[in-house]
Amino acid sequence: MDKIVSLCRRRGFVFPSSEIYGGLGSGYDYGHYGVLLKNNIRARWLESMVQERDDVVVLDTAIILHPSVWEASGHVAGFTDPLVDCRTCKLRFRADHLEESQCGRKPSKRPGEHSECDLTEARQFNLMFETTIGPVQESGAKVYLRPETAQGIFINFKNVLQIARRKPPFGIANVGGKSFRNEITPGNFLFRMREFEQMEMEFFVPPDEAEQWYRYWIDERVGWYRRYGLRESQLRVREHETEELSHYSRGTSDLEYLYPIGWSELEGVANRGDYDLTQHNEHSGTKLEYVGTEGERYVPYVVEPAVSVERIFLAFLIDAYDEETVGERERTVLRLHPRIAPVKAAVLPLVGKDAAMVERARRLYEELRVDELVEYDDNGAIGRRYRRQDEIGTPYAFTVDEQTLEDDTVTIRDRDSLAQERLALAQVGSYLRDALRRPWTSPKT
Amino acid sequence: MDKIVSLCRRRGFVFPSSEIYGGLGSGYDYGHYGVLLKNNIRARWLESMVQERDDVVVLDTAIILHPSVWEASGHVAGFTDPLVDCRTCKLRFRADHLEESQCGRKPSKRPGEHSECDLTEARQFNLMFETTIGPVQESGAKVYLRPETAQGIFINFKNVLQIARRKPPFGIANVGGKSFRNEITPGNFLFRMREFEQMEMEFFVPPDEAEQWYRYWIDERVGWYRRYGLRESQLRVREHETEELSHYSRGTSDLEYLYPIGWSELEGVANRGDYDLTQHNEHSGTKLEYVGTEGERYVPYVVEPAVSVERIFLAFLIDAYDEETVGERERTVLRLHPRIAPVKAAVLPLVGKDAAMVERARRLYEELRVDELVEYDDNGAIGRRYRRQDEIGTPYAFTVDEQTLEDDTVTIRDRDSLAQERLALAQVGSYLRDALRRPWTSPKT
Repeated sequence: MDKIVSLCRRRGFVFPSSEIYGGLGSGYDYGHYGVLLKNNIRARWLESMVQERDDVVVLDTAIILHPSVWEASGHVAGFTDPLVDCRTCKLRFRADHLEESQCGRKPSKRPGEHSECDLTEARQFNLMFETTIGPVQESGAKVYLRPETAQGIFINFKNVLQIARRKPPFGIANVGGKSFRNEITPGNFLFRMREFEQMEMEFFVPPDEAEQWYRYWIDERVGWYRRYGLRESQLRVREHETEELSHYSRGTSDLEYLYPIGWSELEGVANRGDYDLTQHNEHSGTKLEYVGTEGERYVPYVVEPAVSVERIFLAFLIDAYDEETVGERERTVLRLHPRIAPVKAAVLPLVGKDAAMVERARRLYEELRVDELVEYDDNGAIGRRYRRQDEIGTPYAFTVDEQTLEDDTVTIRDRDSLAQERLALAQVGSYLRDALRRPWTSPKT
Repeated sequence: MDKIVSLCRRRGFVFPSSEIYGGLGSGYDYGHYGVLLKNNIRARWLESMVQERDDVVVLDTAIILHPSVWEASGHVAGFTDPLVDCRTCKLRFRADHLEESQCGRKPSKRPGEHSECDLTEARQFNLMFETTIGPVQESGAKVYLRPETAQGIFINFKNVLQIARRKPPFGIANVGGKSFRNEITPGNFLFRMREFEQMEMEFFVPPDEAEQWYRYWIDERVGWYRRYGLRESQLRVREHETEELSHYSRGTSDLEYLYPIGWSELEGVANRGDYDLTQHNEHSGTKLEYVGTEGERYVPYVVEPAVSVERIFLAFLIDAYDEETVGERERTVLRLHPRIAPVKAAVLPLVGKDAAMVERARRLYEELRVDELVEYDDNGAIGRRYRRQDEIGTPYAFTVDEQTLEDDTVTIRDRDSLAQERLALAQVGSYLRDALRRPWTSPKT
């Protein structure tokens, strides 16, 4: 994990947030390549969830919803973690995560050692952030920052049913936008943060098809990770035991990734039954049900694949990170899927001070950037420029050299194989377009 | 405006938020086409700000920053609006917007009529939402939801300078992500909301070039709106008078759009001078300055184009909305730029029940959706399907008919001219790709 954190900082993927003021509670800001990578993750998710399907529409709901939403959903009463204080070291811990946490006394103890600690009884701490809306702080105006996007989808169920003229099975996806959880102990870099970006899709189905769709969506989501190159050995599906299930769930499976902290949840797929629609039906008095043309009437069951952009971001980076020795040299390379990589290609004049090469390379760069995010770099030795692109995961480099000026061909360098071949300048655009659409598997073993 | 609100609801662009619980303070949720439209606005902004330039990088900072950020920026002390209460009708108003607001007594008065009102003295009300971070509500943990993204950029200035190896002039853009302002009187549909999505770019320049870059960015941003089809007659630049300027500003121009509420700010371009970097320098103790290779040293000036996705969304919809009579029929059409339009093309079998046409149309649809957001529709009369696509602004429709089954050609229908021509099936993909890249001007007068 240290290597990932260090690369993220060195290359401007991720910075600790509010750093010049001493930081704030394991928050992070995303730099240039981090934003581009996140944008690609969101775009690929949306493509597979919406653009490539007929049965899912997209929605983007407000972060501050009516407080009754969270009464109905059960979050006000039950979205809590057990909190303990230590009377000796004065730190606070999650009672159910004590084995992973460290006592605050010096010399500091290994994780899980609280033998010198004097812990209070656990009390339930609600994870929703509260704030006040409207011009005065009065009790009626207390609202919450949403802890998940799912409820925003449920309360719009009827709008979508009517306007998009859908009948189950159909889904509503909410991509991006922050959710907020006032975690007692955020940490492990991007793994557990107080603000994070969710991608959730609620798939509404006839109750007797729920089990079948639950299996379907587990397979679909595993397929998505494979498609974007996550290695099979690092991903597994773990079905929750009955006693582990949330109160609303009739079945949940975690897609777990082998993070440096061990196998941990990357994404969850849950069969939420009719719990949420029924709750909002009761609390709002609005009928949230499907009525068919032949008079059939039911509250759909909901199957939900839910993930955060950050956990995918972290899994992709870890899975892609590689170090190898090439000849005499060490290199660090991010073996990201070309459609996930922040930059699609680099355009480089072999000699950065050669005006003719620079002119030709700039022209190529300006052609390519109309369609794709590409970089131009003429600064420093060519080997150093290649290694910089390797570290940010750029799959292709096009180099303009002496020969280019004679025969209008360039060198293509492949990030993974390091193979170099020559290609006519006029074909570079279509080469890149095709390359980005080819199936890709990770060469990392 | 009523027609826009009604179209937005009817076609699922925008819904009132938390509607089944009675709504919440002029908040809105975005439906399918609304999300797609917003995604296109963000993508086009990012393309022109980052992808097509060499001198701007992108950043995405946390919503909850260290509270000292807002002390330094002046928001804790001064980000306020003057609030008055009415002792008679019990409503609250912005003292500086009384002429636009309506008294709460029945029968309700025209905007600006407060003759029966008994108003209190104005007091300053801070617009930042407060919340508490960490497991207990104690004074030290009070934080704010960001009221703008700009400050997140300023506090990362040094990170970007070092890591992206930039020297002024260069810019840092923050696209998307919510900002929050606890407005006393939100309203006018999407025009003034309590949570909204900003797109801000801070362009750092040598102080003596600030004026020139300020003019440059006004022109660039006007050019962007022209490029995406906003009519020249509806957009103007209004320079602030000296007494109107914010305390940090050395010059501000509003790009104003002729909204139904009159000429109002669409986007602001400001020369913020060195105010922000100097403030953070003093409060954090971190030197935020540029030191050149030849020892030159200065705090850069900042030129900022700042806009919200919502105001662009609203301006594009209003500018595109058109009604016309075609033959015997009325139609409503959104004349959106093809690259802004939510759906790029519709694929329609002329006869929805003809298995051969359906099969051929589905195949074309599945080819096109690999690259673009397209729709397939076989439900209802063809005229009705065309009108539905007109209302959501889809620029092209490809219709599979009897002739298609004989000679592998389809009809292309142009949304604006209603011209129909025939094209070989094999050329539809490249036709669409080229059409989306051609310059476009609004046919609306």
